[in-house]
Amino acid sequence: MPKPILYLGTQYKGQARGQLAELSDRYQIKDKNQLEASDYAQIEIFFGSDLDTLRAIYQGEDRHLAWLQLDTAGADYLPQEVMADPKVTVTTVSGIHAPSIAESIYGYLLGVFHQLFIYHDQQEENNWHRYEHVKNLAGKKALLYGTGHLASEIARIGQAFGLSCYGVNTSGRPVEHFQNTYTQTSVTEQLGKMDIIINTLPATAETENIFNQNFFKQMKTNSYFINVGRGNAVVEADLQAALEEEKIAGAYLDVFQEEPLREDSPLWRTKNLLITPHSSGRVEHFRDDIFKIFYQNYQAYLSGNYPSINCLDKKKGY
Amino acid sequence: MPKPILYLGTQYKGQARGQLAELSDRYQIKDKNQLEASDYAQIEIFFGSDLDTLRAIYQGEDRHLAWLQLDTAGADYLPQEVMADPKVTVTTVSGIHAPSIAESIYGYLLGVFHQLFIYHDQQEENNWHRYEHVKNLAGKKALLYGTGHLASEIARIGQAFGLSCYGVNTSGRPVEHFQNTYTQTSVTEQLGKMDIIINTLPATAETENIFNQNFFKQMKTNSYFINVGRGNAVVEADLQAALEEEKIAGAYLDVFQEEPLREDSPLWRTKNLLITPHSSGRVEHFRDDIFKIFYQNYQAYLSGNYPSINCLDKKKGY
Repeated sequence: MPKPILYLGTQYKGQARGQLAELSDRYQIKDKNQLEASDYAQIEIFFGSDLDTLRAIYQGEDRHLAWLQLDTAGADYLPQEVMADPKVTVTTVSGIHAPSIAESIYGYLLGVFHQLFIYHDQQEENNWHRYEHVKNLAGKKALLYGTGHLASEIARIGQAFGLSCYGVNTSGRPVEHFQNTYTQTSVTEQLGKMDIIINTLPATAETENIFNQNFFKQMKTNSYFINVGRGNAVVEADLQAALEEEKIAGAYLDVFQEEPLREDSPLWRTKNLLITPHSSGRVEHFRDDIFKIFYQNYQAYLSGNYPSINCLDKKKGY
Repeated sequence: MPKPILYLGTQYKGQARGQLAELSDRYQIKDKNQLEASDYAQIEIFFGSDLDTLRAIYQGEDRHLAWLQLDTAGADYLPQEVMADPKVTVTTVSGIHAPSIAESIYGYLLGVFHQLFIYHDQQEENNWHRYEHVKNLAGKKALLYGTGHLASEIARIGQAFGLSCYGVNTSGRPVEHFQNTYTQTSVTEQLGKMDIIINTLPATAETENIFNQNFFKQMKTNSYFINVGRGNAVVEADLQAALEEEKIAGAYLDVFQEEPLREDSPLWRTKNLLITPHSSGRVEHFRDDIFKIFYQNYQAYLSGNYPSINCLDKKKGY
């Protein structure tokens, strides 16, 4: 009987394969170019997001797939038969983008608070003008929609700056690094006290258009809105109006209702708005970071345990 | 015998005076407009940096000045007779700018690492182009010249981002929040390992032109240089050459050899350089923060102790 197969995305070559082989010789390590028709049934571990290969595994009668390590943060693109297969554990790389997104958010806030974008523009004019008005992150209050990986990372870093973070989640349960947490209902009376409001929520039916005219009306005029969750949550025309009428002081959008943002969108020219092209989660050493997660999960798997990092709850879908 | 006088800068009105009066009725609280000729000799506590009044105190024969709380971070402008007076304790507001400067530095680094200044410019062109290349602060190494208030604050916040900070001080003594510390001599072999080098040093003869061609040559080509100390430390033409020739990746200068920076300075147009007009230390609630320091020191003083915050070492001058 041949050894079971560990299937590896083609981007992982020499060194990565060497590291895996060193851990155990229980598996044959194969990439797409090395697979033969009879191999699909022998794949026990699958690392990557190559749907063709995954579908080929499910087309056969015989199948030994037990663990699917995705190289993506989400799993919403997985074929139904995989999601419905009780024999398969699915792990993701959820959270891998969190440090980058948090860094982008603080880059925006500190840049705006200390006029760095204005000084950057002024430099073009050889202009030494100094602005009296600055803001400090220290002592401010931020409200985060969502209290998962990403929001926790934002709140954790916030503590170092003396920024107090509050969270919104479905149950209002307490979460580390947050001063206090609320439900979407109980948070309403807090909106007027917040200096910064940040959406980190994934796209679901419940988040559709929740940041709308009525919401922005409740924010302080000297407060900031940030969306690094999903574009479906923000009524863009309402945010645009709030900014143009100075109902709020500024906003940063990394995600949009429609992406790429249309060239003729009025958002490009909206006052006090920073736009980034769904780029805030970009990671410097992406491939290495993903491999580290797989490697740790593989160690757990080899020792007879379930992979411990980012196990997907197939019912919830995340 | 009249009560001794607590002399207060004119900017502190009603509420502040009320708070001080509440603590004790041992002193008459007077500002400049309320001083009569006979009052100078009765001033025991002086809060502010009004040199005219201070000189008037020293012109008289009789004098009861015991504590001088400056409202500035430095004390280098104090008259010699004050510095030489053993009966006077001098306290400063040193450190008050540290959180703002640290925030400005992280605003620069995160803005550059995540291309926010580029996206800000791109927005003018309705341009969605996404850059593949980003950097993360997490995992980087920063070397800080100086390990005082400001450098410690930078290093403390760095820990939250996963940035490892190393320090340079006169003795190489260890300091909290720093992975390791070096003397100016022993640090030389570390320069090529650092991703970020930050000068926080005050202007002294020893810091004159220490960041010069020879220094920049030892830095990595993908590293960044930041000066928030004093302008005398940097040979600006050498930094300009290093940036134009891409010997280093970028720089941020808040202080200069000559301030304001001349309109015809070539620095304004230097590649990969951010210039701010000696503004990084600007504090949002400056007056309140200064008053808090005085208030705490006043409480200590009233209870018979020396003021505890920021006592000046008159020999060192800081």
